[in-house]
Amino acid sequence: MEVFEAIKTRRSIRSYKNIPVEKEKLLKVLEAARLAPSAVNFQPWTFIVVTDPVVKQKLKASYQSDWFTSAPVIIIACAHPNKAWKKFDGEEYWKVDVAIAMQNLILAAWEEGLGTCWIGAFKEDEAKRVLGIPSDVRIVAMTPLGYPAEEKGPVTNRKPLDEIVRYEHW
Amino acid sequence: MEVFEAIKTRRSIRSYKNIPVEKEKLLKVLEAARLAPSAVNFQPWTFIVVTDPVVKQKLKASYQSDWFTSAPVIIIACAHPNKAWKKFDGEEYWKVDVAIAMQNLILAAWEEGLGTCWIGAFKEDEAKRVLGIPSDVRIVAMTPLGYPAEEKGPVTNRKPLDEIVRYEHW
Repeated sequence: MEVFEAIKTRRSIRSYKNIPVEKEKLLKVLEAARLAPSAVNFQPWTFIVVTDPVVKQKLKASYQSDWFTSAPVIIIACAHPNKAWKKFDGEEYWKVDVAIAMQNLILAAWEEGLGTCWIGAFKEDEAKRVLGIPSDVRIVAMTPLGYPAEEKGPVTNRKPLDEIVRYEHW
Repeated sequence: MEVFEAIKTRRSIRSYKNIPVEKEKLLKVLEAARLAPSAVNFQPWTFIVVTDPVVKQKLKASYQSDWFTSAPVIIIACAHPNKAWKKFDGEEYWKVDVAIAMQNLILAAWEEGLGTCWIGAFKEDEAKRVLGIPSDVRIVAMTPLGYPAEEKGPVTNRKPLDEIVRYEHW
């Protein structure tokens, strides 16, 4: 699938078929994340792959929607702020780094016919407790991963280009 | 170009040909950013497109590399933290939102034969002054955009997958 086509057609999927994700496809989407650029190439990220139904059920403590745990795979994108680049003014870039890698993963998944959904509204402390994530590691986002059980047309609910682009100056 | 191929071959470009970017290609990469998902679909972003040599020279106050301003286009990715989603625990997501849109733009550019380079180490106050960006708007990243004047092989300097992936738990 062409890049622009993937960007144009990719939708947030909130209903998944009850079939597993092939190992080679899972490895390919993780590889897409691995290859992402990051500030000073520090790659301050860890991806946790959850497929165990028991662990998925426990993860509901952090995000309670049924469709979330009905996906065959859940991927938790973690950042290591202490190992990430910081700007001279103190600005932190770990959220940017992990978001780049996650978007790579999400677009690569769509090319493989796999749905995802960026999730931010999780209870981080609960997810960290369930997964045994160290206190100095942060969760930036989660996504379910699996074959979509819903069909959606292209994105239509975005601001027009002239509202979000300016030329030469503000 | 297929998504995974773009992710695998895309490199940071720090040398650009002295030829302009066609308007339709510029609009297509901006469209790729426009279509990006964001938390609660708030789309808290503005992209500033700089092509004027005078403005580019002024932007050197924020980032002094010659290759940066030698590109025919510079895109400044801005966030509106006050218009972005915040989690119940106060965690802010505007860096994630803008990073997703910027990575869309960057991959779409590569498909069009256009190089980019994520830049984080700019002096934000200088760039905001030059471009007249309001105080409540933040710059997340910049990138030059243009035809590459250097050839690079695929990415090789990334951690192996088994260092960045864990299964079921930390």
